[in-house]
Amino acid sequence: MIFNCKLKKVVDDTYDIEIGHGLQDKLISDLKNGLTGKKKFAVVTDSIVEPLYGRDIFNRITDAGFKTDLFVIPEGEKSKTRQMKEFVEDSMLEKGYRRDCAVIAVGGGVVTDLAGFVAGTFGRGVPFVNYATTLLAAADASVGGKTAVDTPLATNLIGIFNQPDKVYIDIDTWKTLPRVQISSGLAETVKHGCLGDRALFEYLEANVEKVLENDVDACEFISEHNCAVKYNVVMKDERESGLREILNLGHTVGRAIETVSDYRLYHGEAVSIGMVAQARLGEKYGYISEADRLRVETLLSRAGLPVTIPEYIDKAALVKKLYTDKKVRDGKLRFVFQKGIGDVMQFGENNFAKEITENEIAGIIAGM
Amino acid sequence: MIFNCKLKKVVDDTYDIEIGHGLQDKLISDLKNGLTGKKKFAVVTDSIVEPLYGRDIFNRITDAGFKTDLFVIPEGEKSKTRQMKEFVEDSMLEKGYRRDCAVIAVGGGVVTDLAGFVAGTFGRGVPFVNYATTLLAAADASVGGKTAVDTPLATNLIGIFNQPDKVYIDIDTWKTLPRVQISSGLAETVKHGCLGDRALFEYLEANVEKVLENDVDACEFISEHNCAVKYNVVMKDERESGLREILNLGHTVGRAIETVSDYRLYHGEAVSIGMVAQARLGEKYGYISEADRLRVETLLSRAGLPVTIPEYIDKAALVKKLYTDKKVRDGKLRFVFQKGIGDVMQFGENNFAKEITENEIAGIIAGM
Repeated sequence: MIFNCKLKKVVDDTYDIEIGHGLQDKLISDLKNGLTGKKKFAVVTDSIVEPLYGRDIFNRITDAGFKTDLFVIPEGEKSKTRQMKEFVEDSMLEKGYRRDCAVIAVGGGVVTDLAGFVAGTFGRGVPFVNYATTLLAAADASVGGKTAVDTPLATNLIGIFNQPDKVYIDIDTWKTLPRVQISSGLAETVKHGCLGDRALFEYLEANVEKVLENDVDACEFISEHNCAVKYNVVMKDERESGLREILNLGHTVGRAIETVSDYRLYHGEAVSIGMVAQARLGEKYGYISEADRLRVETLLSRAGLPVTIPEYIDKAALVKKLYTDKKVRDGKLRFVFQKGIGDVMQFGENNFAKEITENEIAGIIAGM
Repeated sequence: MIFNCKLKKVVDDTYDIEIGHGLQDKLISDLKNGLTGKKKFAVVTDSIVEPLYGRDIFNRITDAGFKTDLFVIPEGEKSKTRQMKEFVEDSMLEKGYRRDCAVIAVGGGVVTDLAGFVAGTFGRGVPFVNYATTLLAAADASVGGKTAVDTPLATNLIGIFNQPDKVYIDIDTWKTLPRVQISSGLAETVKHGCLGDRALFEYLEANVEKVLENDVDACEFISEHNCAVKYNVVMKDERESGLREILNLGHTVGRAIETVSDYRLYHGEAVSIGMVAQARLGEKYGYISEADRLRVETLLSRAGLPVTIPEYIDKAALVKKLYTDKKVRDGKLRFVFQKGIGDVMQFGENNFAKEITENEIAGIIAGM
């Protein structure tokens, strides 16, 4: 006997990304106006962002008359673990948080990834809001709904798709970022230009130093383009079945080298090296000209990013680590490639990743 | 500047529940026919079910030519933890599982809850199938998409809503269940009768012993009615915003006593005590007559379930534990009450849980 559970419905996860300067007041007024439908807020931040912006936002929420607590994780990629997720959950439970709350993430990609995952599984899902304080979070984490933690065996493999109620990109906060963090965020921005926005790439070729100097117009321009590129991809493929894999450009080698470096390399630095790797392999296949490949390397370099593999990296371990990539299928490595500048290669219906041999990529890595 | 991420879409989570006898062959043919769209299967089971059904299903999947591995967790409620979720995840990662797999849960509610949660967060979501081997899983876990683990501070509070691709209710497997497990499943069945299916309640009054004796017709009848009651509630409120709380009938005291007993009480046994508690408090409020309340207690008792609180339970600790309930709002206890037999009380638009004082429920608990 068959019992059919019909569960077809319309889901509306639409949300706003507000890009601006000093958006703390806007956040508070949004919360007062019922943005999340909750009156109790778990503010999650990290040890660097807490004294800069986290505690201030916590204080403002307190002053607005809401129940709130501050949950601080140690800064850095190494906090993106299941253990840290447990720590935040248990801290929230100890403070009496149940389903009647929302999570406010204040920080960069690590905080928003972790806090978004916590929110998505706390009481089987409570609302959350991202207050992004880094260019990387603005470029990478504010569109797409991806939340995750790392495990010893794989990065970003345990997580969920979870859309925030709103994202704030506060460009003022970038002023307190170390230069290496701006560069790290620029890696994702260059990636977006390479895979789908030639105008963004060319804007960066003309203005990358302005971003490094925190020029207002330049920062707004790239923030908006980052959102637009990512949104256009994500909207067409929210579940990463095909097209969305193009956002993984440069990330096969990037993620692996980030892990093998034991996070001595920042995410964007690792992605920069990964971008070079895919461009060089792509040049061999004729997907990108030598001239365009050099433009990519030059721009990454001008953005303050590494374009060669640091000496301390064990290249054999790096090649082995590639197999932990999410795109691996039936034990085979799969790479996304840019097509010239501003487009990607397609390898069949709904397939944007090409199967490559270990030898091919090992050869590229050996030469870097 | 506002960037609007429009993410409105139709989601179809429709799936079948197949109720029958010895459905192993059906499972294999469904997998061959592409039920999950995957060709690699992580079979998750527990130490009791493994030798009975888990290994057999693993062998059949192997024989069908698929890649598969068996992941065995220790039996019992204590396995429903974040640590056990990590264990399964890490075991899967070690065996090379990435996003190209589906999870097959073979077991009772603990296995299906845990495996469903693992599936929902592994690679941000891979398909899963439930092969339910207990009446409790058939009654409680096969409709609703609830998956979760327990934490030291709260039961079922960390999890997600995640719908399976298919559920198999194999009544033949109930033959190997200890009597206490059948009774435990009957607690949820009686609950379903009480809250929304008077015909089911009366059928049980006439036939409860037949279920205990594993009578085919009786088992099929209650399986189908369990699915129908739960489906009707869940379909109207998938996210538990209001109506769905009625499925929590008896669970406020039930969940708490289950934890305070340190899982010496089976889930259904705990729910049975919780059902009596709500009926007794409900009688005080005039929501149920003394005669109907006694019918509930008598039926639970005939089903082999406890209707009083065991002596080893610390009643003060039990009352304190009530505050970890998911329905707690603004620090106040909230209870669902049955209205006579076959219906529930409603306390306002979209509100089916009444705020009660600690003294009221402490009084009821003291008298049990």
